[in-house]
Formats: sequence, structure tokens, C-alpha cells
Amino acid sequence: MVQLFDDERLDYLLSENKMHIIQSPEVFSFSLDAVLLAQFAYVPIKKGNILDLCTGNGVIPLLLSRRTNASITGVEIQGRLFDMAKRNMELNGLADQLTMIHGDLKEMKNVLGHSRFDVVTCNPPYFPTPARTEHNRNNHLTIARHEVHSTLEDTVKASKLHVRPGGKVAMVHRPARLADIITLFRQYKIEPKRLQFIYPKHGRDANMILIEGIRDGSADLTTLPPLYIYNDDNTYTTEAEEIIYGKQ
Amino acid sequence: MVQLFDDERLDYLLSENKMHIIQSPEVFSFSLDAVLLAQFAYVPIKKGNILDLCTGNGVIPLLLSRRTNASITGVEIQGRLFDMAKRNMELNGLADQLTMIHGDLKEMKNVLGHSRFDVVTCNPPYFPTPARTEHNRNNHLTIARHEVHSTLEDTVKASKLHVRPGGKVAMVHRPARLADIITLFRQYKIEPKRLQFIYPKHGRDANMILIEGIRDGSADLTTLPPLYIYNDDNTYTTEAEEIIYGKQ
Repeated sequence: MVQLFDDERLDYLLSENKMHIIQSPEVFSFSLDAVLLAQFAYVPIKKGNILDLCTGNGVIPLLLSRRTNASITGVEIQGRLFDMAKRNMELNGLADQLTMIHGDLKEMKNVLGHSRFDVVTCNPPYFPTPARTEHNRNNHLTIARHEVHSTLEDTVKASKLHVRPGGKVAMVHRPARLADIITLFRQYKIEPKRLQFIYPKHGRDANMILIEGIRDGSADLTTLPPLYIYNDDNTYTTEAEEIIYGKQ
Repeated sequence: MVQLFDDERLDYLLSENKMHIIQSPEVFSFSLDAVLLAQFAYVPIKKGNILDLCTGNGVIPLLLSRRTNASITGVEIQGRLFDMAKRNMELNGLADQLTMIHGDLKEMKNVLGHSRFDVVTCNPPYFPTPARTEHNRNNHLTIARHEVHSTLEDTVKASKLHVRPGGKVAMVHRPARLADIITLFRQYKIEPKRLQFIYPKHGRDANMILIEGIRDGSADLTTLPPLYIYNDDNTYTTEAEEIIYGKQ
């Protein structure tokens, strides 16, 4: 059995195939964002190497393991979360396929080398560094949500360093940062190729973007059909349900 | 009466308010793109100055005149089209509000000054310069569709020159060029603020984008609800119909 600490709970990750995940609302709970990214990213099916930056409790490697036999490496800077990611890996019997690394994504060159991964995924902190007061309230959540340890540029730079030429970088973020992401992708020679907007409901502005670029790729960007999460009656749309409950 | 040349025809522009427009399939016909841009762009209602680059037969100034009392200036490089734009202006009794200029958008500084417009709109040529063979087949259409006389960068640079600080630049283009547009907007200090994707139908990739930036604006991009043009049975969607037939 895997150890659970006081504030942790064991959740179903995907009802269909009986994966489980350890979470703690005090520290980090995976969100829809991670689930959408894990479904959006292109992955090699039979073999290869995938890197997940800002892996948190390892939710993206866990989800990707359903879609690929490639080796998946997760990097997490927070000890509490890294520990959770390791236990999640063991809990789901994925120690052969997954590797979890406790470290700073800005300093992974000596550990991971460069240009070694076919795909890099990242669900980075969304918000600029908060004021000190807010900062101190819950340090774990602050780090996961705000650019305390790594900025958007740090994550794009690290993605570029670790992905091979022709390899893919996939990210989930807020639409407000789209111009920043596209500018940084280009600055680091990751050409944006696929873009999808997530809308909470019909008639609302988008509240999430999924973007994938190719290192040293040619300029040609496709914008996929939008994805709506909720129907007008607040039930999940069929598309969202299929992704969230793993019926894809 | 306004003179019509051989290959020209007189079309209804908007059924609701009885505007007319001279077009020629040989030279230039306005498209849905122009209609969508004229509806998407924010315009000052009571007064101000609006500039429309690559104005063609003047369709965007004509449509904008329904939404604003501001002065609207159109610039067109092709003599045939400029002439058509002038006649369209007269035909619709808009000579007091509209000004049509025959010239190259890259050389308008002496004519229009700089930072003088509240809004700049542009429906530029979408495609890179074609091969010589294709180039010669129909010169008018080639110039309207391809970056023969002005590149995307030329249009963004001219927009920046002519819009006032805090003024708006609105453009319609193909989604494949989104990364180029965002990069160029930022390079010329036009911060992308509003983005809308046009989808031909549900389930298809986007085939048009509408983007608006603010000169010297702060970074914060909103992605509006998508617009679908056709229903599954190939009739116009209600939203598209309202825009196309001017029922807004």
C-alpha cells in the first residue's frame, strides 16, 4: 500500500480504467487543465521520450501513460509534490515507464542533457508573482499557481533546451497570455502549429488555451474546433465528458 | 447616375438599409472577410478619424459608415479599384464622410501624417507573392490576394505609423498567419487585445481570424466566442445572417 499523509486523499483519476491519484487540496489538486493537455498533446505511441515540466503530483505523466509506451519523465520543484508524484507512480504500477525528478526546471541540463525528448509538456503556473502578503498564505499553492520559481520564459526556454529538433512542445495556459506564449515560442525557435481554445460555455470568452509548437518547424498554425466544457444547464458537454472520464 | 464599366455589376451591400456596391468579378469582389471585419472593429460613434488600408472597392468604409459619424479614409494602390471605391462612395451619398486615396500604403506619411487616426482597419492580401506564371494570369486579383505590393509587415508598420497612441488596429486574416501577426503587432508596439476565430462549421478548423490591438496598450488578450458561418445543412447560422444582412 502507498502511504497517505493527513491532508491527502485518494481520488479516481479516470473512472474507465481504474487509475488512482493522491491529491491534497492543501497542496495541489490536478485540474481540468492538466486533463485537457494530456489529451491534446501528440505523443509517440510505441516508444520515445516525453518530458513533463511542472509535473505537480504527476497527473500528466499518469494520464499520458494510457496513450503511449514512451518513457515519461516528470520534473517538480516542490518536495511535497515530488513525493506525491512518486507515490502516484508506484500506486498505479508505472515505475517502469515513469521517472520523477525533484529539481528546478532551469537547472536540468546536467541531469537530462539537451535535445533528448520527442515531446515536452507543461502546465505552468499561470499568474505573475503575487504580492508578499498573498504569497505567504499557502506557500505550496502559491508556487503551483504563480511564477515564483519559474517564469513563462523559463518554461519555454527549458522546453526548447530539452526537446529535439522536430520534436513537440505542448502547453496549457490562459488566453490572456497567448501573445506572450507565441512571442516566446518564436524567440526560442518553437514554431506554433496547433492551437485550441477552451470555452466554459457557448457565448462566453475562452478561458483556456492549448498550444503545441514544433522546434525548428515551419510557420503554419492550425486552429482546431473550440471545446466547450459545460452545457447551458451546467452539465458537462459530451466532448468534455469523454475527455474527463477517459472515454476517448 | 454612377458609371458602370463592362465587367462591373451593381450589388446590394446590405439588404436592410439599401446600400449598393459596384463590384467586378474580374477585378475584385468584397468577401465575407470584409463584412466581418467591419462588424468586429471598435469604432468611435460620434466623431474621430478612421483609416482603412487595402480598401479595395471601399467596402469597409461603406459598411463602417453605418456605425459611425467619424471621417473614414480609404487607401488603395490599384487604379481600377480606387476608381471603383470613389464611385461607390458617390453612389451611396457618402462623399462628405469618406475620402478615397489612390496610393501606396507604404508612402502615406506625407499625405496622412502620423498618429492621426483613432482606428486603422485592414483586410490585407492573404498569400505570399505567387510564382511569376500565376502572377500574370489576372493582375488585379493577384495584387488583391497576394503580397505583391505590400507584405504583412508593411501593413502592420503603416498601421502603427498612422494610428494614435491608444488607438486601435483591426485586421482580418487567415489563422495560419496568427503567429506572424502577433509577432509583428508586438514588434510595432500594437498590443493584441481582442481575438475572434471564424469557423465555417461546427467541428471544422478555423478559417479566418479577427484581431484587434491597441497601440502602446498593456498585455491582456481576450478571445471572444467563436463565430460559425454555416449550419450543418449549409444554411447561414443566425449570427452570420445577422452580420451579413446587416440586422445587427
